Amino acid sequence: MTANPLAPSWLVVPDDANELAPAVWPSNATRAAGGELTLGGVTASALTAQFGTPLYVVDEADARARARDLRDAFDREFARIGTDVTIYYAGKAFLCAAVAEWMTGEGLAVDVCSAGEFAVALAAGVDPARIGYHGNNKSLAEIDNAVENGVGAIVIDSPVEVERVAAAARRHGRVQKVRLRVNSGVHAHTHDFLATAHEDQKFGITLDDAPTLVSSIRSHASLEFLGLHCHIGSQIFGADGFSESAARLLAVHAELRAGGEIAELNLGGGFGIAYTTADDPTAIAVLARQLADIVAAECARLQIPVPHLAFEPGRVIIGPSAVTLYEVGTVKPVSVGLDDGSSAVRTYVSVDGGMSDNARPALYGADYSVRIANRVTDARAALIRVAGKHCESGDIVVYADYLPGDVQPGDTLAVPATGAYCWSLSSNYNYLGRPAVVAVNDGAARVIVRGETIDDLLARDPGIGRGTRKAQTAGDHDTNNTAASSPDSQKAS
Amino acid sequence: MTANPLAPSWLVVPDDANELAPAVWPSNATRAAGGELTLGGVTASALTAQFGTPLYVVDEADARARARDLRDAFDREFARIGTDVTIYYAGKAFLCAAVAEWMTGEGLAVDVCSAGEFAVALAAGVDPARIGYHGNNKSLAEIDNAVENGVGAIVIDSPVEVERVAAAARRHGRVQKVRLRVNSGVHAHTHDFLATAHEDQKFGITLDDAPTLVSSIRSHASLEFLGLHCHIGSQIFGADGFSESAARLLAVHAELRAGGEIAELNLGGGFGIAYTTADDPTAIAVLARQLADIVAAECARLQIPVPHLAFEPGRVIIGPSAVTLYEVGTVKPVSVGLDDGSSAVRTYVSVDGGMSDNARPALYGADYSVRIANRVTDARAALIRVAGKHCESGDIVVYADYLPGDVQPGDTLAVPATGAYCWSLSSNYNYLGRPAVVAVNDGAARVIVRGETIDDLLARDPGIGRGTRKAQTAGDHDTNNTAASSPDSQKAS
Repeated sequence: MTANPLAPSWLVVPDDANELAPAVWPSNATRAAGGELTLGGVTASALTAQFGTPLYVVDEADARARARDLRDAFDREFARIGTDVTIYYAGKAFLCAAVAEWMTGEGLAVDVCSAGEFAVALAAGVDPARIGYHGNNKSLAEIDNAVENGVGAIVIDSPVEVERVAAAARRHGRVQKVRLRVNSGVHAHTHDFLATAHEDQKFGITLDDAPTLVSSIRSHASLEFLGLHCHIGSQIFGADGFSESAARLLAVHAELRAGGEIAELNLGGGFGIAYTTADDPTAIAVLARQLADIVAAECARLQIPVPHLAFEPGRVIIGPSAVTLYEVGTVKPVSVGLDDGSSAVRTYVSVDGGMSDNARPALYGADYSVRIANRVTDARAALIRVAGKHCESGDIVVYADYLPGDVQPGDTLAVPATGAYCWSLSSNYNYLGRPAVVAVNDGAARVIVRGETIDDLLARDPGIGRGTRKAQTAGDHDTNNTAASSPDSQKAS
Repeated sequence: MTANPLAPSWLVVPDDANELAPAVWPSNATRAAGGELTLGGVTASALTAQFGTPLYVVDEADARARARDLRDAFDREFARIGTDVTIYYAGKAFLCAAVAEWMTGEGLAVDVCSAGEFAVALAAGVDPARIGYHGNNKSLAEIDNAVENGVGAIVIDSPVEVERVAAAARRHGRVQKVRLRVNSGVHAHTHDFLATAHEDQKFGITLDDAPTLVSSIRSHASLEFLGLHCHIGSQIFGADGFSESAARLLAVHAELRAGGEIAELNLGGGFGIAYTTADDPTAIAVLARQLADIVAAECARLQIPVPHLAFEPGRVIIGPSAVTLYEVGTVKPVSVGLDDGSSAVRTYVSVDGGMSDNARPALYGADYSVRIANRVTDARAALIRVAGKHCESGDIVVYADYLPGDVQPGDTLAVPATGAYCWSLSSNYNYLGRPAVVAVNDGAARVIVRGETIDDLLARDPGIGRGTRKAQTAGDHDTNNTAASSPDSQKAS
């Protein structure tokens, strides 16, 4: 089959539009005997029957394995160069109690960047000493609360935070470990390595300013300087940016050692994943080896001991582990005129979620893949666009993929690689309740975040008296999605 | 003062960086004697003291006046050409019980596009016969629920919906009024008027297909065809797009009259507002006159009676009525290199909200304005960028404006024109609770949507036992923001 002229150039016409490309699906995603998608041993139909759609499904074993494999690879490679490493799971990608437990269970520490994320981590039993706290504008209350609860380290983002954290530490009689966030001038996602570290962004300080700030940190008895921190971007496919950034940071790190030993270097996160088969991120094991090599080489050149290393991956661990299930509501072939006067057909497949459960296509133009989950079919592949149900033309879930041309209302669609920054960024746009998150493992499924009912959405509106509800408000979004019923939903008429 | 070379070309250096430009502020926004911002007669300091920050503040009298003035203008102009008009408030812009009451109180009908929006409207006491129901993918349950509850009209968006709505109407023994959404080929926001109506988007059908669909609608005894519906875009500043679209629709409308009278024509919404002083939307009174003129002229040319008209504005009514208040946490001057080798300073002012309470800058690159709310100052103006507190470099609230250069931590900032698509699109990214919405009127303030506490955010996580909370989780976001305490927040440690 030839490509549809409306398809983007990167999109390959698949030999089989039912195939689950291993690079973009959780490792335990398979087709059952009848062709149905199975996730962690649970069929899509069992999941949708029990929990409804839309539904986030996380493969627990897959997420744990990615965490473990990443930690193992970094442990091994950095042991090779004579040091050790701490892996912080970046909670902003997706955090709930279950995920925090999985990550700590696999030996990871946890990164948070707000009072809310910190509260989740603590409530999930994460050792506060194994929590790192980020943010360009932590509130005084957040800093105080973090210090009081024994947070492992705070990443200082601006000069004013030195004083704020020092004061909080004094108040609570603690010596607070801190990192200093610097900009290395490396923007890995744009392949733009600036000559200077003067960056037009809200985070961190310039490398030039680091010595002054580190002196300031060292002047406080209530602070312990752990080392520099840098984050060069997100969804990065290769090691070049990290290498360049590590070299720049280590040069300053070496200078700063004149004022005292520095335990650590934190190179942040940003490791990319495959959302489509066109994406080709460097394997984590290779990345770990390259990063260890560059750190070893730079430290040798600078004649300094190799520091303890820290990294903060989120997406690369949880992103590929989840799949979103939707139900198709409408299928609409749209004839689009081409420049040569001819036309081609793009089929809009509308589902029962959209930009409220996955903002990334609208927010970043992010591409995703899609497959029919409830069946396989030999129908000729057609170029489709998966649209959401929101009242907005930019509400797209998958800009372009090929699906069997007989995709129809009632089919279940599965969009892979939705574990990171989908639930995190979800909204209630158009008063759609956010879907439940279900973990699958070894043939069993359990709710790890309850879905929202319409009653949940109305609960904060004081103008809506409980007794004045005039109508049954059951929609698709409040059937079955509730592991624990809210007090409101039990009162629903 | 000369412009900062980092400023966008549209941004004018203000004579007074404290001034509240009438075009972008609610009509009852003033500076009190001491210089403090006052909204609806309530000072910013009184609002933040009682409700905390971030905070959405809606000027009730302003919103009502915009609704009333719009309705009056359209009534007057369409009466002049011998017909009448229904104005539907587009609930997707911002809907809660209070706003629904204001809109219906000013004689507007209400547009919804989901079971949730419909539930809010009903619970707020909106007459279902005055509700229009939109959506490219209404679920069967949504259609059934809408019909059962006597919804005024359903906008049919695809062929399959004809059968779905007809079946629901039969089931409930009703004759359901329906509109048919068509694409006119006019994209007003891009000034791109396509020669054909074949549009590469999820909504509606082509004008060419309208006769077939209308025949299908008319073949059902359970459906009553009201007329065509079109929506040409959003944030539109002039009448040209509406005029072109109206002409195209009326030509088909005239053809369709061969098969029976057609009561109405619905030209949708999309009227733009000023987010900055560089925005210059056509005044509503002028737009109403131009639209009435084009409809009258086209009907005369086609020798058909002028139909009843309907419009669906949202943003133009509620957008300018609200202001978001934030507290400044950090102020960071960043030196940015210019092409000529020199550099200029952009000051990053970080606030306690961000893309979670206003996604539009990140989502659409939307520009906003900002002023210091708690004081006026003669300090020389500086180019600032207001950044949020999320762990994401794209988390910007105001890309560029000039503020007095002595803006400092603890100041309250006010961002105007945040009434539409801010609360609607809000998220809990980084576990930030969504701010409360407060209505101000005549010197009094009341909560119309309660803000979220951290406990609200954790309530759907079954892994977080109520008894296992290990820490005080109070952050900025859960102080005072709660008009009605949730059961959880009362249990907070």
